Amino acid sequence: PGKKVLIVYAHQEPKSFNGSLLKIAVEELTKQGCSVTVSDLYAMQFEPRATRNDIVGHLHNSEAFNYGVETWEAYKRGGLSKDLVEEQKKVQEADLLIFQFPLFWFSMPAILKGWMDRVLVQGFAYDLSKVYDGGLLQDKLSLFSFTTGGSKEKYAIRGDIRYLLWPMQHGIMHFCGVQVLEPHICYAPENVSEEKRKEMLTAWTQRLKTLWKEEPIDCSPEWYFK
Amino acid sequence: PGKKVLIVYAHQEPKSFNGSLLKIAVEELTKQGCSVTVSDLYAMQFEPRATRNDIVGHLHNSEAFNYGVETWEAYKRGGLSKDLVEEQKKVQEADLLIFQFPLFWFSMPAILKGWMDRVLVQGFAYDLSKVYDGGLLQDKLSLFSFTTGGSKEKYAIRGDIRYLLWPMQHGIMHFCGVQVLEPHICYAPENVSEEKRKEMLTAWTQRLKTLWKEEPIDCSPEWYFK
Repeated sequence: PGKKVLIVYAHQEPKSFNGSLLKIAVEELTKQGCSVTVSDLYAMQFEPRATRNDIVGHLHNSEAFNYGVETWEAYKRGGLSKDLVEEQKKVQEADLLIFQFPLFWFSMPAILKGWMDRVLVQGFAYDLSKVYDGGLLQDKLSLFSFTTGGSKEKYAIRGDIRYLLWPMQHGIMHFCGVQVLEPHICYAPENVSEEKRKEMLTAWTQRLKTLWKEEPIDCSPEWYFK
Repeated sequence: PGKKVLIVYAHQEPKSFNGSLLKIAVEELTKQGCSVTVSDLYAMQFEPRATRNDIVGHLHNSEAFNYGVETWEAYKRGGLSKDLVEEQKKVQEADLLIFQFPLFWFSMPAILKGWMDRVLVQGFAYDLSKVYDGGLLQDKLSLFSFTTGGSKEKYAIRGDIRYLLWPMQHGIMHFCGVQVLEPHICYAPENVSEEKRKEMLTAWTQRLKTLWKEEPIDCSPEWYFK
């Protein structure tokens, strides 16, 4: 109770299974007394492209555009575009970040990758030697909640599903100092029975009930590739 | 000679190191007698978001929008948006796909991820059981060529750089039946001497000279996580 949660949501259709998972999270966490904010990326028409438009006013070096340097400099002087400042404020205030999305090509949909690329700039999320356990977004938790197209068995044939979590959980969240809870994976909701789908939704509600008692995962390579 | 190459390029600045790598590839491959096409994603203002706009005309199911189903159906009836049809035509004709980009968060920049999400639709790049060695984009090669922010040593501390290649090389290219050449990685070009940068550019030219003699990598989990 009293905890703040930011759900970054990337699905086009409210009636989708991802939409149901979002709705459940908002309802259950609100019921617990949490304050829940949703960034509904498609509804916001969130811009995924990292461009010069992200910097208000003059550039540090207008001769050769370097996105990393320019957003770092802009962050320091308060010159990032309004949409980024708003998202950073939501992240700053949150105790828990939930990413809700359908897996696209072993990763996030581009609109969500764009949120990572543009919101988590140097100076805000990490800095020169402030990375991993020293990252700037300490004391926060994160949770990747996603649906897949293929079944659990199909993923298992070609290697553990944890392999694809490395860039997202380790490369982004852990890099910024954010702790990572076990991912929540709903396999192939489009290809199972209505009953099985309901079970998956109930399982998500149940998990959320005891979420705050969970221990973050051990963010070592062994967790992923043991 | 006579081979067709598509370079999908994701950097905002022609004067960047990525811009130099692109220029070298175009020049060297053209010199070899290859026909080279470049998709310069930022210059094209390529749309990374997967939305209803990608389908021309009516939807298969307008009650609940399902991007995967709708693009599959649209592909079959020739109803994908013009920008996607153009990119698919370039892919279809290519013998080799080169992806040239700066690594953003252990992965591709969102604009390039959006190219993967939107161009490689079901029916075109893969189909029901036509995946991996049976994928629809057979007899093509791919090569991920990218720059990093951190040094080789920094990446090595926290696990092999090959870990982050799994979703891109295996999860996308191999899934579609495309063979994968060794990645080409330029570590931290922004933090090395001018001399070292020149060496890196020369190394890329040299590699391209014998590229067509290279054997694709073995696309098993062992290559990534041995």
